[in-house]
Amino acid sequence: MAEVPPVAALDLTNAPKIRAALDAKAKPAGALGRLEALALQIALIRGTDTPKLGEARLIVFAGDHGLTAEGVTAYPSIVSGLIAQLILDGRAGANIMAAQSGTTVLVVDAGLLRPLPPHPLLIEHRIAAGTRNSRREAAMTAAQYDRALAAGIAIAGAEIDRGADILALGEVGIGNTSAAALVAHAVTGIALATLVGPGAGAPPGGIAHKRAVLEAAYGRQPVRHPAAALAEFAGFEMVMLAGAMIGAAAHNRMVLVDGFIATAVATAAVALAPNLRERLIFAHASTEPGHKALLGHLGATPLLDLGMALGEGTGAALAIPLVRAAAAILTGMDDLAAVLARAGGSPA
Amino acid sequence: MAEVPPVAALDLTNAPKIRAALDAKAKPAGALGRLEALALQIALIRGTDTPKLGEARLIVFAGDHGLTAEGVTAYPSIVSGLIAQLILDGRAGANIMAAQSGTTVLVVDAGLLRPLPPHPLLIEHRIAAGTRNSRREAAMTAAQYDRALAAGIAIAGAEIDRGADILALGEVGIGNTSAAALVAHAVTGIALATLVGPGAGAPPGGIAHKRAVLEAAYGRQPVRHPAAALAEFAGFEMVMLAGAMIGAAAHNRMVLVDGFIATAVATAAVALAPNLRERLIFAHASTEPGHKALLGHLGATPLLDLGMALGEGTGAALAIPLVRAAAAILTGMDDLAAVLARAGGSPA
Repeated sequence: MAEVPPVAALDLTNAPKIRAALDAKAKPAGALGRLEALALQIALIRGTDTPKLGEARLIVFAGDHGLTAEGVTAYPSIVSGLIAQLILDGRAGANIMAAQSGTTVLVVDAGLLRPLPPHPLLIEHRIAAGTRNSRREAAMTAAQYDRALAAGIAIAGAEIDRGADILALGEVGIGNTSAAALVAHAVTGIALATLVGPGAGAPPGGIAHKRAVLEAAYGRQPVRHPAAALAEFAGFEMVMLAGAMIGAAAHNRMVLVDGFIATAVATAAVALAPNLRERLIFAHASTEPGHKALLGHLGATPLLDLGMALGEGTGAALAIPLVRAAAAILTGMDDLAAVLARAGGSPA
Repeated sequence: MAEVPPVAALDLTNAPKIRAALDAKAKPAGALGRLEALALQIALIRGTDTPKLGEARLIVFAGDHGLTAEGVTAYPSIVSGLIAQLILDGRAGANIMAAQSGTTVLVVDAGLLRPLPPHPLLIEHRIAAGTRNSRREAAMTAAQYDRALAAGIAIAGAEIDRGADILALGEVGIGNTSAAALVAHAVTGIALATLVGPGAGAPPGGIAHKRAVLEAAYGRQPVRHPAAALAEFAGFEMVMLAGAMIGAAAHNRMVLVDGFIATAVATAAVALAPNLRERLIFAHASTEPGHKALLGHLGATPLLDLGMALGEGTGAALAIPLVRAAAAILTGMDDLAAVLARAGGSPA
């Protein structure tokens, strides 16, 4: 199995000092609500009371799924590559969300059926032309799993080296709500009935068919270990996403987690590296029905609840301005005492 | 009474066409949730299927309140001017929220106790050095109300003339949760017990004292008409805010409504100009207890729910990226059919 880099527990030594700094700002204590809790989290992750955040990246991992042969989705696999290309063309949902914070969007080909033409924003890490059909056999070999996880870790590290402090992570992959439900079921024990939803579009045979396929796939190899669950059921884009989460956390950077699939990946990644949890910021509540249960499993309350369920990291990207605003409470606001002093002392 | 410029009902002729355009984008129908509804609203307000939004402004109206003499707040009135100055200095909560969308923040002195020194971002429209004590007498004269409303309309119009398409409106004014509760009670009939909360800080005599003062103030002159309610109980900053809402709507621009005080103002402004309602975008849910009832009265569900209650337009500013993202669904995303055509026709 791939080596998972160490992710240390957050050092909480400065937490009281950071809380006091937040309370001292020119506002009633707590008046910025969840952004203050987020500011504390960011300061602890970055290890400074005044976190000046560098660039953000939206990294969208794309891959195809052999399980689509079982009729679990309304869209054909070719759509994964088309959407990945559309993101590179700058005309997808991911782009308009990232544009609100001036964030660069990168696409990683983790294993699409067909390669994409070279592009400055495309990172080529193809493990294979799609996974195998997990209803019949493991989605990937142990060696493929290892390569995908290592690639995700390396991609996060490279972007951090280039100045990224905020990693918003998303995915594209027709069939991956099925893969995500299987991985999350294996890791968390939450019933497949809870985790199976329409995804990007209910399959021709209905959600009951999708559920029956997933029950059969899990019954084929009912694993519980997160690495085994990812190798048996995930897509390459999901394993790479798990690696990127762990890689970012190992470098003390924030990870913005998107919707159902990214959160399912997070359940596995946190099981592999428990201290990762404290570096995750959950961006939005998806309408995919199983998302709520996964958030509950992770003890997470997302920042946004806008009824979205598009994937591509759209929700994660949309939360970047909230992360920057939270950090700026510590770096960009004056203390109330300083404001009062300018008026010639306390007015009380 | 001041003349209220006409605000026409939204022309819904193009709504089916805009809905179809949203459905045709490269995403499952409805997958961008509330942003799609917001995109429709924006397109209808701007009267175009492809709304390209120009600049945004955060306009913070500041004023002082004679009612503070009754001990309804923890902070002295001098703090209003200090916070207004802090915003001009660029170091307040409003500034960090507006910075996330590159939005200019303007401060309007609508009637602070003391004038502020001249500043390029300060708009001087002082009606008086604070309102009178509405526990004892009307907060302002009819002539002052007229001037304040007209000033708000003019300020919105001037900023729109300078290129502003999104007006995020906020306020600063120690004592104005009391004034807002009175105005909203008068206009909506919602009980003061529901509308009275701690505001920026519970007063020395507790919330029960604040409520008793407001009951007495309303009992002095139990008006129902929105203009009368504003003149009797509001601050100059609130009347000007009402004027700016109406002025923006009359020019077919979106208004981002902040928290409790701005929403209380909106109940009065919508009563004055009912078609204003369709131009309002409610930015965030405040923790001030009465906010929920006011949102319910207006049939509004805010975009953000982050436990904030700072005022200064902080919530309104934080929602600007969501407004821009929504509009960009219509202007920046390709149609699914176009994406599939690039692949050589439908893959079905």
